[in-house]
Amino acid sequence: MKRRIGILTSGGDCPGLNAAIRGVARAAYEMFDAEIVGIHDGYRGLIEGDCSEMKRSQFSGILTIGGTILGTSRTPFRDMRKIGDDQVDKVAAMKKTYKAQKLDCLVTLGGNGTHKTANLLAKEGLNVIGLPKTIDNDLYGTDFTFGFHTANDIATGIIDRIHSTAASHGRCMVIEIMGNKAGWLTLYSGVAGGADVILIPEIPYNINKVAEVVKRRAESNKGFTIIAIAEGAMDREEAKLKKKDREAKRAASHFSASAYLAQQLQEAVGVEARSVVPGHIQRGGTPCAYDRILSTEFGVHAAELIRDEIYGVSVALKGNQVHHNLLSEIAGVPKPVPVDHQMIVTAKNIGISFGD
Amino acid sequence: MKRRIGILTSGGDCPGLNAAIRGVARAAYEMFDAEIVGIHDGYRGLIEGDCSEMKRSQFSGILTIGGTILGTSRTPFRDMRKIGDDQVDKVAAMKKTYKAQKLDCLVTLGGNGTHKTANLLAKEGLNVIGLPKTIDNDLYGTDFTFGFHTANDIATGIIDRIHSTAASHGRCMVIEIMGNKAGWLTLYSGVAGGADVILIPEIPYNINKVAEVVKRRAESNKGFTIIAIAEGAMDREEAKLKKKDREAKRAASHFSASAYLAQQLQEAVGVEARSVVPGHIQRGGTPCAYDRILSTEFGVHAAELIRDEIYGVSVALKGNQVHHNLLSEIAGVPKPVPVDHQMIVTAKNIGISFGD
Amino acid sequence: MKRRIGILTSGGDCPGLNAAIRGVARAAYEMFDAEIVGIHDGYRGLIEGDCSEMKRSQFSGILTIGGTILGTSRTPFRDMRKIGDDQVDKVAAMKKTYKAQKLDCLVTLGGNGTHKTANLLAKEGLNVIGLPKTIDNDLYGTDFTFGFHTANDIATGIIDRIHSTAASHGRCMVIEIMGNKAGWLTLYSGVAGGADVILIPEIPYNINKVAEVVKRRAESNKGFTIIAIAEGAMDREEAKLKKKDREAKRAASHFSASAYLAQQLQEAVGVEARSVVPGHIQRGGTPCAYDRILSTEFGVHAAELIRDEIYGVSVALKGNQVHHNLLSEIAGVPKPVPVDHQMIVTAKNIGISFGD
Amino acid sequence: MKRRIGILTSGGDCPGLNAAIRGVARAAYEMFDAEIVGIHDGYRGLIEGDCSEMKRSQFSGILTIGGTILGTSRTPFRDMRKIGDDQVDKVAAMKKTYKAQKLDCLVTLGGNGTHKTANLLAKEGLNVIGLPKTIDNDLYGTDFTFGFHTANDIATGIIDRIHSTAASHGRCMVIEIMGNKAGWLTLYSGVAGGADVILIPEIPYNINKVAEVVKRRAESNKGFTIIAIAEGAMDREEAKLKKKDREAKRAASHFSASAYLAQQLQEAVGVEARSVVPGHIQRGGTPCAYDRILSTEFGVHAAELIRDEIYGVSVALKGNQVHHNLLSEIAGVPKPVPVDHQMIVTAKNIGISFGD
Repeated sequence: MKRRIGILTSGGDCPGLNAAIRGVARAAYEMFDAEIVGIHDGYRGLIEGDCSEMKRSQFSGILTIGGTILGTSRTPFRDMRKIGDDQVDKVAAMKKTYKAQKLDCLVTLGGNGTHKTANLLAKEGLNVIGLPKTIDNDLYGTDFTFGFHTANDIATGIIDRIHSTAASHGRCMVIEIMGNKAGWLTLYSGVAGGADVILIPEIPYNINKVAEVVKRRAESNKGFTIIAIAEGAMDREEAKLKKKDREAKRAASHFSASAYLAQQLQEAVGVEARSVVPGHIQRGGTPCAYDRILSTEFGVHAAELIRDEIYGVSVALKGNQVHHNLLSEIAGVPKPVPVDHQMIVTAKNIGISFGD
Repeated sequence: MKRRIGILTSGGDCPGLNAAIRGVARAAYEMFDAEIVGIHDGYRGLIEGDCSEMKRSQFSGILTIGGTILGTSRTPFRDMRKIGDDQVDKVAAMKKTYKAQKLDCLVTLGGNGTHKTANLLAKEGLNVIGLPKTIDNDLYGTDFTFGFHTANDIATGIIDRIHSTAASHGRCMVIEIMGNKAGWLTLYSGVAGGADVILIPEIPYNINKVAEVVKRRAESNKGFTIIAIAEGAMDREEAKLKKKDREAKRAASHFSASAYLAQQLQEAVGVEARSVVPGHIQRGGTPCAYDRILSTEFGVHAAELIRDEIYGVSVALKGNQVHHNLLSEIAGVPKPVPVDHQMIVTAKNIGISFGD
Repeated sequence: MKRRIGILTSGGDCPGLNAAIRGVARAAYEMFDAEIVGIHDGYRGLIEGDCSEMKRSQFSGILTIGGTILGTSRTPFRDMRKIGDDQVDKVAAMKKTYKAQKLDCLVTLGGNGTHKTANLLAKEGLNVIGLPKTIDNDLYGTDFTFGFHTANDIATGIIDRIHSTAASHGRCMVIEIMGNKAGWLTLYSGVAGGADVILIPEIPYNINKVAEVVKRRAESNKGFTIIAIAEGAMDREEAKLKKKDREAKRAASHFSASAYLAQQLQEAVGVEARSVVPGHIQRGGTPCAYDRILSTEFGVHAAELIRDEIYGVSVALKGNQVHHNLLSEIAGVPKPVPVDHQMIVTAKNIGISFGD
Repeated sequence: MKRRIGILTSGGDCPGLNAAIRGVARAAYEMFDAEIVGIHDGYRGLIEGDCSEMKRSQFSGILTIGGTILGTSRTPFRDMRKIGDDQVDKVAAMKKTYKAQKLDCLVTLGGNGTHKTANLLAKEGLNVIGLPKTIDNDLYGTDFTFGFHTANDIATGIIDRIHSTAASHGRCMVIEIMGNKAGWLTLYSGVAGGADVILIPEIPYNINKVAEVVKRRAESNKGFTIIAIAEGAMDREEAKLKKKDREAKRAASHFSASAYLAQQLQEAVGVEARSVVPGHIQRGGTPCAYDRILSTEFGVHAAELIRDEIYGVSVALKGNQVHHNLLSEIAGVPKPVPVDHQMIVTAKNIGISFGD
């Protein structure tokens, strides 16, 4: 058996991409007669035919390297969302590259946008396998995406460091964690970092409830408060606005979620509140042990699927078992944190406030 | 409702013990009228009545601290294994302390030995709840114990560092990972650290197969080999011996598993092979984000069980859900790595050798 | 010999404060009959008489802890800068507390502001010893302050993580490092992190020169650029403004140094440029090995000075030797990076641009 | 000006080698018309003519990588120590390669052995520049070698982790730090890690003094003791033996320094004492920020020396200034810790015992 495999990484970079690429390649070389074509910068490379056959040695030594050796881009998939004329052209271009490269299949590593395009290509008759990556963990059908646990480690370490300043100065520190639509990363790192308040997009917060916690702690012998807030969190007034109006309001004020909250708290409670926005730090660098394992398992499973000629699917984790879902059933479906999730109950039971 | 809760940590120390203690305490204080009695140095404190009521503030700031604020010891539980006269006395002493302290229940944090004693006490009529901790992950009934993922992070980081020396010198490096009876930690850190060979107690190795891998790599342009070996791993000859004879043989040679293998390889293959035994480094220091979360969830679930007056159980993780098992069904039952475990299949599919 | 020692930490928190406090205390207890009075929240505690005698055990286990167990504040010292009526009152209040507490001497840990006040108190006849702490390393008379190397480790680690994203997306990443007046931290972490451009307050930058570097790299096979910029860095146009006007301009635009530069570059070069502002993360958490040693040496030297009754001085590092300077000669004197500093020459010799 | 530069790394691998190689190369390419020839596996490659001209891109992205991209070996230099017939042949072979490759100069990165050979080659008329690397910091003429501070960070982190187990179990933990002839690494990491006892080769220890400390702490409310011992440390009885006899005695007992001490303490004090031998972990992985800077400065200074045609020297750090020494004056001269070194005085002043 011989298989010529195209592989691309698309969307925001994320720890574990190289480990997953290595997993696909090493398992493919090990299990069957494989040729691997690296497609550059995500779908851009597929559209433009920018790709090259890779040597086996290129997959060596990359397990621990952050980012992606294939490059990535965000733009092209955005154009895919609705199929207008331009999009039809792009789909045609991608099919053309697929054929020109004589690919037997295409492995796409990415998040929701990447999976939508992957599904589109599958419907067009290409043999596609998706691998779910994102630090946001907001992909339907898998318990965890790779990248999430590394980001959680980083965000937790950041909260740890901020604790020193908060306690020494008796301050309220507001730490903004990545996550526009889903609060997984904020929830996990907030619990792991010992936050007093956790604010996520799924639970719009009541500023008075948050202020109460800060005030109570400021007046206790603790004196400081740690708030973990997702970049997409909003107060109840903001939540009532239409998305467009909400974004316009934010843009006008030049305020991030954390800066907005810090200002509200300074005004409402009169305490010293500072915001920290670690940003891209949360998505870079070497993957943690957990993600190296998960990425490897996902990559190897993709190769197993190729061996068994199973396409139109996305690899997933269910409990401790790696399996796969139909692309058509999961592509683009979001996975917000359920408001009654066990970890939220757990957090509330140790007195963490969600501002509700 | 009022509850007076005794709590102890027993067996080898492990990251997450303090996080779990904090979880029990914070949730108990939050959910009901709780008094908490800290029992010192594991069952020793329970036997000798060495314990003291704790203040709420003592559970603050310990989430990130390694080890256990309650102290621990190994000896007493070993005596528990078979109930002779001395043991009867000890059980009586423990019951006496339980009564004298007017405890409503006892929470024990530990591994297999700890759970055996916990089960014994439950049979004697005490209200006992077990929390499964160990870096070895070898407790039946739970997918993961807390401490395991931190140890995995540490062991993986160690393999990463050893890679530099192995590659620079073109050497075979043999890294001995903790795990006498179960190979979980070696399997996980071996995959995460990019080991070429993984040797675990569950799969006695054929020295010739291992030598072949080392030789093939020494002759390739790689030139080096990384072997992750569990401290309880053995070759096929050793595996045929009775446990007692095997241990006597090892003791006589002053050789650890890794030193023994390194010598075998130097003799068999003629390559430069060095062993590294990181030992206790793998069990100390601040718990990783994953373990802080798992420990907190386990601790909080224990408090929920106390609230609901459910005793004679041990907290456990099943998939992503925290629940509990009957102590009588899981106490002392080991959990070796199944030889057909998905991660072993995965590892073999990327060419990792298990020496079989 | 008996000595009653007051100790306080003032200004922004910084890794190594607790290690230095421990050094003073352990050496004092070891060398003579010492009593130690902890003064809370910096000079605020001295003004308000908020202090308490400490127990020996309070200095145990704090070597590795970030922040300061004594608390700190910024405000009071700012009032000290010019001695008006209110300040006279505060000085009187501090002298009163010193007397009421029957102190033999006062050890102050802080930066330039703290040292100014320390010098003022020394002139008023109090026995004062200063210890130089700050992550900015901008204190005259000492080669290094403690806290600097930890911040350098953190900032370097941040640049490392950002490299993944920069390389994967082919982006220009602008990382804002702490340092309003001095560029030490940006210079060191920029070199250690492999930055392509380093911009510091001491060398106002020419935006065209920076744009050139970014453009040249964007067009090369590298494709990405890493810029380390101090929060106090400015372009040549800004540098011509008066400080007041410059700050007003910045405040009006809501732009940090990095966001301002990123916008300039997007407009000038047309590349995708993103800014990251790690902020307080750089000053928290456990001190690195270097800072634990330096803090301990500084603290112990303070105790040696107390033993020898040498006051009115500040501890300092000269080469590898710990010694001390007269407070009157160093208090409040800044230490900018000399523009011909060996490390700048080194950096330029490997092609790093300073935008000049 | 054109220069053809040979470069090699010799002796044990060490963090910062790649950073220094990159420093030499980038500065050479930047400052003049350079060609760089990589010599493989240290002097072995020079003897055997195993080398190849490198491309500029090979020096990119290696700043943060542990080990050495050139490979290293220990054996050849050992043969160099005394010039017998075989050695004469090897020197001739090295000169032949130097000529065949048309080198203008040779840069050697290594420790004392490497420098001896470098000096020998300089005497033979080759243009040689040495760069001092070793985690042991035992090279005369430089305040610090690169690699040392990374090893110090690692060793300190190891002691931190061991603290958890020591405190939780009330044990005496004996941690063996690298350093056969010099105690720098043990001294620094012992102070940074908060060790109670520090034992180094320069100060043979009195076992009774060590036992006293352990006993006193075991009986206090602390209960545990942390001992940092250099692999070359010895008690006073051993110190009286000739080196050869001492090594024979050790080899016969299969005991490392730490295992030997742990046994002595168990017998003498009756406490539970455990030894940990982290070994090679201390020399691998990414260099810390300090070492990346020092390595870069050393590498760049080597290129500056080549530009200025200054040969027969070794680069060195004096205070905070990078300069150079004559190879003939420093080659092979050891640098033990002076027994009255300021850090030893500091350590004693906070009650740390050196067993003397």
